[in-house]
Amino acid sequence: MSVISLGSMAFDAIETPFGKIDRIVGGSAIYVAYAATHLVQPVYQISIVGNDFPAEEMEELKKRGVKLEGVEIVADKKSFFWSGKYHLDMNTRDTLITDLNVLADFNPIVPESYQDAEFLMLGNVLPVLQMSVINQMKKRPKLIVLDTMNFWMETAMEDLKKVLTMIDVLLINDSEARFLSEEFSLVKAAKKILGMGPKYLIIKKGEHGALLFHENHVFFAPALPLEEVFDPTGAGDTFAGGFIGHLARTKDISFKNMKTAIIVGSAMASFCVEKFGPQRLKEITK
Amino acid sequence: MSVISLGSMAFDAIETPFGKIDRIVGGSAIYVAYAATHLVQPVYQISIVGNDFPAEEMEELKKRGVKLEGVEIVADKKSFFWSGKYHLDMNTRDTLITDLNVLADFNPIVPESYQDAEFLMLGNVLPVLQMSVINQMKKRPKLIVLDTMNFWMETAMEDLKKVLTMIDVLLINDSEARFLSEEFSLVKAAKKILGMGPKYLIIKKGEHGALLFHENHVFFAPALPLEEVFDPTGAGDTFAGGFIGHLARTKDISFKNMKTAIIVGSAMASFCVEKFGPQRLKEITK
Repeated sequence: MSVISLGSMAFDAIETPFGKIDRIVGGSAIYVAYAATHLVQPVYQISIVGNDFPAEEMEELKKRGVKLEGVEIVADKKSFFWSGKYHLDMNTRDTLITDLNVLADFNPIVPESYQDAEFLMLGNVLPVLQMSVINQMKKRPKLIVLDTMNFWMETAMEDLKKVLTMIDVLLINDSEARFLSEEFSLVKAAKKILGMGPKYLIIKKGEHGALLFHENHVFFAPALPLEEVFDPTGAGDTFAGGFIGHLARTKDISFKNMKTAIIVGSAMASFCVEKFGPQRLKEITK
Repeated sequence: MSVISLGSMAFDAIETPFGKIDRIVGGSAIYVAYAATHLVQPVYQISIVGNDFPAEEMEELKKRGVKLEGVEIVADKKSFFWSGKYHLDMNTRDTLITDLNVLADFNPIVPESYQDAEFLMLGNVLPVLQMSVINQMKKRPKLIVLDTMNFWMETAMEDLKKVLTMIDVLLINDSEARFLSEEFSLVKAAKKILGMGPKYLIIKKGEHGALLFHENHVFFAPALPLEEVFDPTGAGDTFAGGFIGHLARTKDISFKNMKTAIIVGSAMASFCVEKFGPQRLKEITK
């Protein structure tokens, strides 16, 4: 089983209480790819980069079973750039710079060679682009997982609500769940959100673990308590990559197996935060 | 097996986003008693009340297997009174009034009839009073559990550090663990705190569950996700009552059984928060 992964490939500048890095490869699709390929290959990447994206990174991705036909390279523009600074609690961060660059013109195309993929991971980009990818699939994938964020709820709620009716699993964090549902209680929020379309809802709570909701069932997966969180960037995307990677590897999309997939996603994320960027995900072995 | 429980018996006035109550029975030893007696009897209470404490409440406690010989009744004073208001997130609250009343003169005495108890629950009172109860025990109890709070860390740290060397299990919340250890990471905090004396450390994280630390072991127990939290007052004491109640009932103080005890404590606390004060704990059955 293979996975299509839609999302950004970018450069990040990150400052945490423990250190600072001016330029490191990042973006949601990078983290999903480095996490998921530990479990399943190929991962069919759909993204866009500029002329500055390193050829060695592309080679590294290929070596790990990431297919890049769906990654557009724009010759006269730069890659998406994000810069952020984490607060001492590591749960909150300020975005310092968002240079969309190539991402402003992103028009994802699903290559013919990707059409056999049965798992679709829609990373955090414009809802209308997520919808476009679903619509380009000739056969509906077995499972469609969608990640999104507050920003799209504030600026593109109508499109987001539309795409929510087309997916299976929604992946958001606690504050996003509250924002989307206008409910403070996460259990109430989950009920409302499951009424918007998704059959499964995963609420990520960082160090506090993750909640999985489906019909009247709920599963609370603790996170591994870590001595140090060095850089939380990409932890959510890594979780997503581990989650869908496990489901695709086992070809089992039951509620029971989703519980295991959440533990796998959590374990992956616990590695991700140990170093800057996706570095640690490249080092770990099975 | 029986449990000695030291703590306050009081009146509370509580305001939450969902309601307000001007006067309800409360105090740490009330919650511990109503929780623990579901699991083990007798509970040997050590506390102090004024002339205003309801005779019916005393009768109710007796009926449930709470021994009151260690509860001093002061004829010319009022019971401890606390008033607090919860914020919308229910995790933080403002204390509006603290009338110590009888609690200002509390000098706990362990009656001779309590001396056979093998489990000792030291609720959140002055560390020097907790120490006094330990010192009055002719035979060291099988397990000594201690609850405390930020206030004592700020005002009586020296006494607190002394009593920490005399106990087995320390029960505090995440912010207290950070304050006590001066470490932000709870895993680092736990290492430091275990170095201060307790063999086991439980860090309560409210809706996010609880962590149990012992030597190099860690256990993360999720909390039951609740649709509504009506009143969190006493949830921590109820957790403590369920925890020590389960251990006393099973007579097993292994790490493995402590994991189960934490789940029992969590389940008890999930009932406690459904209504004002200890009301819900009185209604539930095995």
